[in-house]
Amino acid sequence: MTAPASSFDPGLPDGTNQSLDIAISPDGTPEQGRRYDIPARCGMAVRVKAGELLTITNPVGYQVCDFWIFNVDDLQEYSSMEHLHTSILSLFPKVGDGVISNLRRALMTITEDTSPGIHDTVIASCDHARYQQLGVEHYHNNCTDNLRQALIAIGLRAPAVPAPFNLWMNVPVQPDGTLSFEPPVSKPGDHMRFRAEMDVVAVMSACPQDVTPVNGEGTFPAGLSFQVDQS
Amino acid sequence: MTAPASSFDPGLPDGTNQSLDIAISPDGTPEQGRRYDIPARCGMAVRVKAGELLTITNPVGYQVCDFWIFNVDDLQEYSSMEHLHTSILSLFPKVGDGVISNLRRALMTITEDTSPGIHDTVIASCDHARYQQLGVEHYHNNCTDNLRQALIAIGLRAPAVPAPFNLWMNVPVQPDGTLSFEPPVSKPGDHMRFRAEMDVVAVMSACPQDVTPVNGEGTFPAGLSFQVDQS
Repeated sequence: MTAPASSFDPGLPDGTNQSLDIAISPDGTPEQGRRYDIPARCGMAVRVKAGELLTITNPVGYQVCDFWIFNVDDLQEYSSMEHLHTSILSLFPKVGDGVISNLRRALMTITEDTSPGIHDTVIASCDHARYQQLGVEHYHNNCTDNLRQALIAIGLRAPAVPAPFNLWMNVPVQPDGTLSFEPPVSKPGDHMRFRAEMDVVAVMSACPQDVTPVNGEGTFPAGLSFQVDQS
Repeated sequence: MTAPASSFDPGLPDGTNQSLDIAISPDGTPEQGRRYDIPARCGMAVRVKAGELLTITNPVGYQVCDFWIFNVDDLQEYSSMEHLHTSILSLFPKVGDGVISNLRRALMTITEDTSPGIHDTVIASCDHARYQQLGVEHYHNNCTDNLRQALIAIGLRAPAVPAPFNLWMNVPVQPDGTLSFEPPVSKPGDHMRFRAEMDVVAVMSACPQDVTPVNGEGTFPAGLSFQVDQS
């Protein structure tokens, strides 16, 4: 009834960067109203209590944020894009929509979105294997390892790598289902705000993708910022 | 670094049906060339060795099959629709496409599809919570529990509930990302064939959805069949 001993650990990074060392506090608890900066190519985790608001800001506009939410009392409950699709009957979540878990509960609700609302919910977070397939020979920072490291940095461990909610990522869907990677249409300073519907850990990765134009054309992966406020 | 003690077990069913008792063999190894019938509303698992062919048949045409593939040597590697989307740059896999894992490897390749190729890769498998939300008060058979039970029936356990590859499920995507549940367009006797690219366990659930028209309009959930052959 158990997995083989060779089972790979989904919470263990393939490589590391400074995400391991930049936790906002030992357990991810934020100072209310303080702005935290996520360095380019890095990931950070923050605890958000039920009713609190998390604001994620895109200073440069073209920077994608891979975003995950976990129930802090049971990390096996996490944001699930396939359950979200069923809930909202759309690939594009908008203000008022709950970000749904694999147990079909709203972890957070989108309360504000200053961008045109173009976000991705169908593409996996970049990972070591992805960059190898794109021809990168050395270790490349990636959102999957940023998720893993951001949780380890606050004393937790990802029990799985859920499909990400890719804020500001522009992946148009043609009527025949064809997808393409396009530069974001968001503008400098755009932000999204989420109200926690239960106590959660939110993880944000400033996507380090620099091989495809996911983070803009002719631009470099940039940082993001976030803060938590009482509602 | 560990999950809380209250952590729910993704491999444990919320309820049971005969899927627990209808394994094709104690460890899921099939007899080559033998047709196995999946009863309506049930799930079954089968081991398919690298190079072997798995054929899944839809006798009534309107029956959806929720489908998952696991690497038999490490169940933590499994079919991932978000990685599949990245690989094929489409929401609709077709003949020649590999069904990609969360480690970005092809677990199986689609070698034949007699249907018009309308399958779903964005909707979660139905589960206990889904039927509760649809107003069903008692326990309702569901694909998620069928997956869990089909693996338990051959001595394994799902380490997670991956997003399913929903064969013949018709969920059109509008240009604005809007989704809808429509009756399948497949016809009686349609089949799909998959070549295993490594030793895998494939799990199929004859979707018991009878509240939405996923399995046809005015029809009842029906059975499916499958067989494994040498290539």
